[in-house]
Amino acid sequence: MEISNKKVLITGGLGFIGSNLARRLIEYGNSVTIVDSLIPEYGGNLRNLHDLRDKVVVNLSDVRDPFSINELIKKQDYLFNLAGQTSHLDSMNDPFTDLEINAKAQLSILEASRKNNPDISIVFASTRQIYGKPQYLPVDEKHPLNPVDVNGINKIAGEQYHLLYNQVHGIRSSVLRLTNTYGPRMRIKDARQTFLGVWIKNLIKGKPIQVYGDGQQRRDYNYVDDLIDALIIAATKNNAIGGIYNLGAPDPMSLTETAKIMCHEIAGSSWNLVPFPEDRKAIDVGDFICDYSSFSSAFGWEPKVRFAEGIKKSLEYFQAEIEHYI
Amino acid sequence: MEISNKKVLITGGLGFIGSNLARRLIEYGNSVTIVDSLIPEYGGNLRNLHDLRDKVVVNLSDVRDPFSINELIKKQDYLFNLAGQTSHLDSMNDPFTDLEINAKAQLSILEASRKNNPDISIVFASTRQIYGKPQYLPVDEKHPLNPVDVNGINKIAGEQYHLLYNQVHGIRSSVLRLTNTYGPRMRIKDARQTFLGVWIKNLIKGKPIQVYGDGQQRRDYNYVDDLIDALIIAATKNNAIGGIYNLGAPDPMSLTETAKIMCHEIAGSSWNLVPFPEDRKAIDVGDFICDYSSFSSAFGWEPKVRFAEGIKKSLEYFQAEIEHYI
Repeated sequence: MEISNKKVLITGGLGFIGSNLARRLIEYGNSVTIVDSLIPEYGGNLRNLHDLRDKVVVNLSDVRDPFSINELIKKQDYLFNLAGQTSHLDSMNDPFTDLEINAKAQLSILEASRKNNPDISIVFASTRQIYGKPQYLPVDEKHPLNPVDVNGINKIAGEQYHLLYNQVHGIRSSVLRLTNTYGPRMRIKDARQTFLGVWIKNLIKGKPIQVYGDGQQRRDYNYVDDLIDALIIAATKNNAIGGIYNLGAPDPMSLTETAKIMCHEIAGSSWNLVPFPEDRKAIDVGDFICDYSSFSSAFGWEPKVRFAEGIKKSLEYFQAEIEHYI
Repeated sequence: MEISNKKVLITGGLGFIGSNLARRLIEYGNSVTIVDSLIPEYGGNLRNLHDLRDKVVVNLSDVRDPFSINELIKKQDYLFNLAGQTSHLDSMNDPFTDLEINAKAQLSILEASRKNNPDISIVFASTRQIYGKPQYLPVDEKHPLNPVDVNGINKIAGEQYHLLYNQVHGIRSSVLRLTNTYGPRMRIKDARQTFLGVWIKNLIKGKPIQVYGDGQQRRDYNYVDDLIDALIIAATKNNAIGGIYNLGAPDPMSLTETAKIMCHEIAGSSWNLVPFPEDRKAIDVGDFICDYSSFSSAFGWEPKVRFAEGIKKSLEYFQAEIEHYI
């Protein structure tokens, strides 16, 4: 199941997931090249790999630039295609940038693969956000796609380009639909990746966690190490090619329960309920729980880190590193 | 059900459907403005409205240009948003142009509406092509979307932007998914709109119709006058807002039957079976029949023109006008 002695390209590799993946792949003895734009509103942060800079090639460029990707993709065995605009609110305020990154750049990457490296294996990181408000729970891959924001629409296009280039051009690609992922090196400045980021920041700064609405909305969370296991499976298992798989967790919980577990880790911390801001209310989807049994039964993947344990590790990381993340 | 004394904007208005719609709306006493790029590979043709040039405003511009749309959309009551790249093969050879026109320009148009004319009513012309290879027949709107080309992926994004701007920003918009549409003023130079175009051209030029494969693939066809009835319904009925509707026909038939009916209209004409070209084979979807009962039962729409009658009218038109269409 592991990748070793391979050449691996990671778009968004200075970000939360990309940098944790890079660390694992370096540990496994791979040659890792990272593409990251370091756009301030996104997840890229040089701190994420500061201790490994002599073991990784960092290429600062934007996936919207087709020329650098054309060259960087050559001779790579794997591409973990993680670069993306992730903020739902930003996608509504600036829909064109979201389209350029989440749709058009994906076409560039696939065209580059087709022309310069048709034997590459690609994993595309998508999001459960594309389902919109659930019609039933847990949400499986057959659930209709009803995105509630421009980001969701463009992520669907990104997924479909990957599957199409597999079907028509034979590019080996698979898609994982991620739920809320958390862990060391996540963006905590704001809620652009997940609300858990800003909750962690507030806890560490001694501010109360603000829970929107009645706090009863349920969510599922993946610790980043479990996600990385899934990414490596999706890249290396032949029968994952051409597939779309939900990820998820066995312990979904309400936002209030989430806040309580998090507060338990830091003495003197607190949370409270606040009304939904208008812009958040418009795109809120209520309860959301992913059915990940398709991926689990096909490949034996199961999250190993429960939320209480993962959040403890995350808070420890950010307590030591907070100055680099706010 | 009719629109009269309104201001109407039609993107792609010099094209096949747009020009027929413009003719009808002028007849009903509306003030019609047309946007068309006249890109040679697309459907725009000045001949389509040559006899009505003093009764319509023709603005030659490209929907990819957001500035002209920003101005043109002001004070319009209705927008029939028909401009699009329609060729499936072109979308595979040049996926970026397809994305710019079928996805990005749609965002521009919707942003222009939101900023400059939020009370406008919009109908977006989509395509049954987004369903891909049918999993069951007839194909209703709940059928999964599995596009077999870049065009289909980008058309899905275009649809979803329209529905999202309805849900989030209150822009009144509806979506029709068109099947093969034919009639006077269609593009017949090549198969970029539908294979029926090139079949008509060959018949008129005295060449045999080439039917790909075994000719048993079934299709449904709408005569353009029936489609225009549907577009006007979708624009004017309040309960169509926010909806997606298939169109279709009560008389689906095989390609061989289609060829026979067409040959019947022109003495001495003939058809034959030829193997699928490779690039066509890759994106062929087999039988395709649309279930249009949702639109039909909600609004009483039913195609009035049978294929034999519609193709007769079409051939008569092109026999008189052939020099302007090849």
